[in-house]
Amino acid sequence: VAEFDLINQYFKPPCSARNDVLLGIGDDCALLSVPPDKALAVSTDTLISGVHFPHGTMPEDIGYKALAVNLSDLAAMGAEPAWASLAISLPTADKRWVEQFMQGFNPLAAQYNLVLVGGDTTQGVLSITVNIYGFVNEKKALKRSNASAGDLIFITGTLGDAGAGLDAVLNAERYNIPVDDTLRHCINRLNRPEPRIRAGLLLTQLSQIAAIDISDGLLVDLKHICEASQTGAIIHLDKIPLSDTLAGHYQKRPGGQQPDWQAITCAGDDYELCFSCPEYQVDEMNKVFEAQDISLTQIGKMTSSNKIECFDKAGIRQNLPLTGYTHFTHEKQ
Amino acid sequence: VAEFDLINQYFKPPCSARNDVLLGIGDDCALLSVPPDKALAVSTDTLISGVHFPHGTMPEDIGYKALAVNLSDLAAMGAEPAWASLAISLPTADKRWVEQFMQGFNPLAAQYNLVLVGGDTTQGVLSITVNIYGFVNEKKALKRSNASAGDLIFITGTLGDAGAGLDAVLNAERYNIPVDDTLRHCINRLNRPEPRIRAGLLLTQLSQIAAIDISDGLLVDLKHICEASQTGAIIHLDKIPLSDTLAGHYQKRPGGQQPDWQAITCAGDDYELCFSCPEYQVDEMNKVFEAQDISLTQIGKMTSSNKIECFDKAGIRQNLPLTGYTHFTHEKQ
Repeated sequence: VAEFDLINQYFKPPCSARNDVLLGIGDDCALLSVPPDKALAVSTDTLISGVHFPHGTMPEDIGYKALAVNLSDLAAMGAEPAWASLAISLPTADKRWVEQFMQGFNPLAAQYNLVLVGGDTTQGVLSITVNIYGFVNEKKALKRSNASAGDLIFITGTLGDAGAGLDAVLNAERYNIPVDDTLRHCINRLNRPEPRIRAGLLLTQLSQIAAIDISDGLLVDLKHICEASQTGAIIHLDKIPLSDTLAGHYQKRPGGQQPDWQAITCAGDDYELCFSCPEYQVDEMNKVFEAQDISLTQIGKMTSSNKIECFDKAGIRQNLPLTGYTHFTHEKQ
Repeated sequence: VAEFDLINQYFKPPCSARNDVLLGIGDDCALLSVPPDKALAVSTDTLISGVHFPHGTMPEDIGYKALAVNLSDLAAMGAEPAWASLAISLPTADKRWVEQFMQGFNPLAAQYNLVLVGGDTTQGVLSITVNIYGFVNEKKALKRSNASAGDLIFITGTLGDAGAGLDAVLNAERYNIPVDDTLRHCINRLNRPEPRIRAGLLLTQLSQIAAIDISDGLLVDLKHICEASQTGAIIHLDKIPLSDTLAGHYQKRPGGQQPDWQAITCAGDDYELCFSCPEYQVDEMNKVFEAQDISLTQIGKMTSSNKIECFDKAGIRQNLPLTGYTHFTHEKQ
């Protein structure tokens, strides 16, 4: 369909090119140059309307998030972003939609000096597949298999906001609940997650770091590290850092001062990094992160068991499901 | 949705790994090693049911074709295949479908020593996005901008079968026409195009070759070369090679012995290469291709005009549309 070809004009890089793009959009393939001392890190993520983001999400937010979640995969490997390609399917050849989508995508790409090297628009149900490319020294990569029993477990930033934001969107839709500042903060974290590229790059300065980005939920994602490293883990729930907004939200709730740990540990979409660090490096790491003003919190420890155990403030073991809130249906799994 | 995770097991490479896959499926990113003297060639193609292949196409055929059309993009650049990643969206977590899909995908991957380095299955309308990676010496790449006025225009193989196959599928559906051996041959070319990887690699031994794969139609694809090279072209329709099957089909038609040039030059999906070659290299090229038993036919010449002109056997100019049969709707564009 010819109009879809016209749309491809929106994929031409808006600003700076990169020297390592030898041939960009407009031929059968892009031709790219990878630094000889680096491995190429690649990842693919598909976002489908109604599955990975609620129907009705603004095109700018979709454009931002489609790139952010892919950048987050590079961050979790400690890779430096370089290029991306973008396959969009759209019900109709809606130029305005693509323009708005790129208004979310382009500034984030520019922030990380990332160049779009391929784009394809086809007619279909709204869905976006981004392929992302970065560079990392293979020996320094933050592989999931790098953890050992005794390593300490950390997360960047705070957890739970995006999950609360999703609840807010779905509840506002269902029960016609007004969206206040608290919920607006949470919805913003759902739609505009910050990929932890800087944190990932800093971690490659250390050794034997195993990392993952929290896209599906802390526990289910941590489980991937445990499986790859053949370790278990202990998590201290009360150490999990919450944003002031979310902590305030839980304090105001009738009855309970206690946060909803299940919602927090099983909610995805925060895109913080969860990683393990051998104890001897922790002081060094904290110094580096403090200097860069990136918040880190120790929340647990890798063990030699084969399970993930969660304890509350009183030291009582809590049975929380090791599943994630992976899809935007109205039912949690 | 948890069942979709289970499906990802089908993406583990069935056979030989490659030394340049430093870390395969199962982490946040794959880690890959590109030869230091080569450029990385990448391309993305999305196939949507009812748009890029008729509804009802067998999963094996979809699996084959999804990879073949991407390999074809590497062929058109003269690149050697290395890796692919695969994003599938499926209405339901249908393991049998994915298994059959991979039965079409895997043998073709093995044939080209290609390894799957990323896979993602999500819930949605049936659609497949393949990202493909290969290597090419940048100076030898078959860029669309390499053509000059006076270069001769060639195609590999024969044209028109896939287009006739598509007509057959759609007509059989609409008018309940029985599928005979002729149509079966054409449908097979529609579903199982042979990517011209070997031809592309041979062409990189020559200089200043501009190539494209015929996915949308000879004329519309040739136009991309002309635009990138700022040339025009003359095509001699009677030189366009047809398969014996298709030639026989036209001879049997009531009234006309003349092939339907519009159908042949505007039909896509044959995935033959169309390329230009400077005249001084043609003898050398013919020898190389003959030795490798790959059929080549000269069908025209690049000109310094800004148009593509087609002439029939009698030397009469034919006005054929420079558009392609790009989508599987029942109407041609």
